[in-house]
Amino acid sequence: MTWVEGAAGSLFDVDNLPYAVFSRSGEGARVGVRIGDQVLDLAPVAAAPGGDLEGGPDLAAAWGQPLLDPFLRLGRPTWAAARAWITSILTDAAHRRHVEPHLVPVDQVRLHPAFTVGDYVDFYASLDHATNVGRMFRPDAEPLLPNWRHLPVGYHGRAGTVVPSGTAVIRPCGQRKAPSDAGPTFGPSTRLDIEAELGFVVGTGTTLGDRVGTGGFADHVFGVVGLNDWSARDIQAWEYVPLGPFLGKSFATSISHWVTPLEALAAAWTELPGQDPEPLDYLAVEGPAGLDIEVEVRLNEHVVARPPYSSMYWSPHQMLAHLTVNGASLRTGDLWGSGTISGPEKDQRGSLLELSWGGTEPFPVGSEERTFLEDGDEVVLRYTAPGALGGRIALGEVAGRVLPAR
Amino acid sequence: MTWVEGAAGSLFDVDNLPYAVFSRSGEGARVGVRIGDQVLDLAPVAAAPGGDLEGGPDLAAAWGQPLLDPFLRLGRPTWAAARAWITSILTDAAHRRHVEPHLVPVDQVRLHPAFTVGDYVDFYASLDHATNVGRMFRPDAEPLLPNWRHLPVGYHGRAGTVVPSGTAVIRPCGQRKAPSDAGPTFGPSTRLDIEAELGFVVGTGTTLGDRVGTGGFADHVFGVVGLNDWSARDIQAWEYVPLGPFLGKSFATSISHWVTPLEALAAAWTELPGQDPEPLDYLAVEGPAGLDIEVEVRLNEHVVARPPYSSMYWSPHQMLAHLTVNGASLRTGDLWGSGTISGPEKDQRGSLLELSWGGTEPFPVGSEERTFLEDGDEVVLRYTAPGALGGRIALGEVAGRVLPAR
Repeated sequence: MTWVEGAAGSLFDVDNLPYAVFSRSGEGARVGVRIGDQVLDLAPVAAAPGGDLEGGPDLAAAWGQPLLDPFLRLGRPTWAAARAWITSILTDAAHRRHVEPHLVPVDQVRLHPAFTVGDYVDFYASLDHATNVGRMFRPDAEPLLPNWRHLPVGYHGRAGTVVPSGTAVIRPCGQRKAPSDAGPTFGPSTRLDIEAELGFVVGTGTTLGDRVGTGGFADHVFGVVGLNDWSARDIQAWEYVPLGPFLGKSFATSISHWVTPLEALAAAWTELPGQDPEPLDYLAVEGPAGLDIEVEVRLNEHVVARPPYSSMYWSPHQMLAHLTVNGASLRTGDLWGSGTISGPEKDQRGSLLELSWGGTEPFPVGSEERTFLEDGDEVVLRYTAPGALGGRIALGEVAGRVLPAR
Repeated sequence: MTWVEGAAGSLFDVDNLPYAVFSRSGEGARVGVRIGDQVLDLAPVAAAPGGDLEGGPDLAAAWGQPLLDPFLRLGRPTWAAARAWITSILTDAAHRRHVEPHLVPVDQVRLHPAFTVGDYVDFYASLDHATNVGRMFRPDAEPLLPNWRHLPVGYHGRAGTVVPSGTAVIRPCGQRKAPSDAGPTFGPSTRLDIEAELGFVVGTGTTLGDRVGTGGFADHVFGVVGLNDWSARDIQAWEYVPLGPFLGKSFATSISHWVTPLEALAAAWTELPGQDPEPLDYLAVEGPAGLDIEVEVRLNEHVVARPPYSSMYWSPHQMLAHLTVNGASLRTGDLWGSGTISGPEKDQRGSLLELSWGGTEPFPVGSEERTFLEDGDEVVLRYTAPGALGGRIALGEVAGRVLPAR
């Protein structure tokens, strides 16, 4: 049990230990790990003589940087050793005297972007989301397109506009044309939306031409972030044929400051809901490859949906294997989103597009109603999962408020 | 007239002056500019005392780096001043004595990736290419989709797999399903293709939320590169609905080592072929916004097509304005491709897909025939444009050879 006051039994007990980049007033940014309501400043503790951390100086150097990038490059054995050491110093009371001075209350730190985003890919891995979207956009056809059950459909998004939680989202302008309009018009999006997703962060890269099989997932993926893929549905609907979403998505994608390492999700793995037909061999997975993560979508502090990640059709192992099967290389900091997380129930839909059924059915938000987002609206995504200690852990939260168009 | 022997009247006279990152055996990589068959090592000349270059030390520092990135960040006034200075030292014989020792024969240097690619976007700006593809893929419908004449259609590609000219391209594997197949299969692509394009390199970035109008093109764009967007048509055809191309493109995009600054294209601007209907105001351009660049597609040393860039429907100013109209920010090193350059004639098509009409009409390559690329095939794209001195300039060449699938 951890000696850090208030941490045991909380959402940030020693079975969680997410990383972020933080700074205190007047000091440089560096890597910290969260325990309870505190951030542990890792570098000075790792650098202290006699701290029984193998590779201590290397880790201290990595953790002293203003980005997680150097730590992400170190790879799974080092990440695991680092976590074991952090757990030991936070649970063994003998360490308290030299560790406690490096704990900082989380409300006294400033958080920074955690890592340099390499390429950003967005998948479309929820059967319920893809089915709902298909029903709305192609009402007279099969909701799922022929490829959907054979491969995790995905596309590249804009890495340069991935922003940290808390960044205001300016309502985008663009070109749109409703089917009933004579021609396209220009103006602020009138169908601004969210997509509640989970993001996967690549730690170690690969060489061009290599593939990562489904079994290589834990070797390459460091951990997960909360992710909100803001979407302008009117812009998207007009532009997306035949080359996919572009400006309807590229104005902002928000991710959490906190990156939860894969080890913290050890108790969250669960069986996939089932894949029919069986995918091709390169997408085969063994053992539980789904994640039992509960998502909460809050709009102006009201919970409007609780999408279950466990309902996702494609596993993250499959997304990674598919992404690299053509020899595309990975870089440290590559990020991919799961795609909107939607469950089978109406209150489990991870986008307003689905919650309002294409804008035709306003849904309640406290004493108000919404179809799409209005200026000033704030969206917060929260995520929890089972922890290894029997309770729950909180993953990185993502918040963003809509500002009027310029 | 330049005093550099063999340069006057060549494709690399002082109206060209493209930049690259080079190294000599045992020395560090740094920025050079090409004149004739020589590379001028810029940093030591700029750093020399008495060299009448405003901001000389800053430029020397930027040019001493192993990437163009620091130079790209300096902005149009500095790029223009640097070019004027380079022109003066290469034309005024008084400079010959101290400059000549820093000229290195181009065949004695090694070239390196020129800049860090931020985001990579690929447009689809050729009317003839889009029409050809539409006719092949949707034979019973209007070849152009409804949005095509209203906005430059584009999508994000994979920045991490943009590789320099000369990099071998490993035939990608992936999932594909012909309409006649019962289900998808996995294997090496059987329809490996090229796309002859022009690439635009962003120098100075913007802040999230800002737009760059068509008039801001020269403030933000540093110059152009040759670009080959390798494409696996079988993989692409199966995956691309509804989110666009993904693995069919992400295995490799080749760009030239040499970056031609916009100033070198001053004599190449020409009127667009004409846009009907007139695009929305944010896409309005004044003056000649097309580029009179001739492209040569060589397959195993045989010229198989000569696509004219002047036939492109959308101007690069419009691509930039569209890309940023939603407030998406630019970063130094962002790269966008024009999309396949195809002219109206059969021998002006910039992809094998079009040259072989979807693989149905093999075309001659010397004494052989091709539909798509075979292992061992080498593709070289060459580009020339009118120069300011009345002759022609050569833009960066892009070469790549196909290796068998792994």
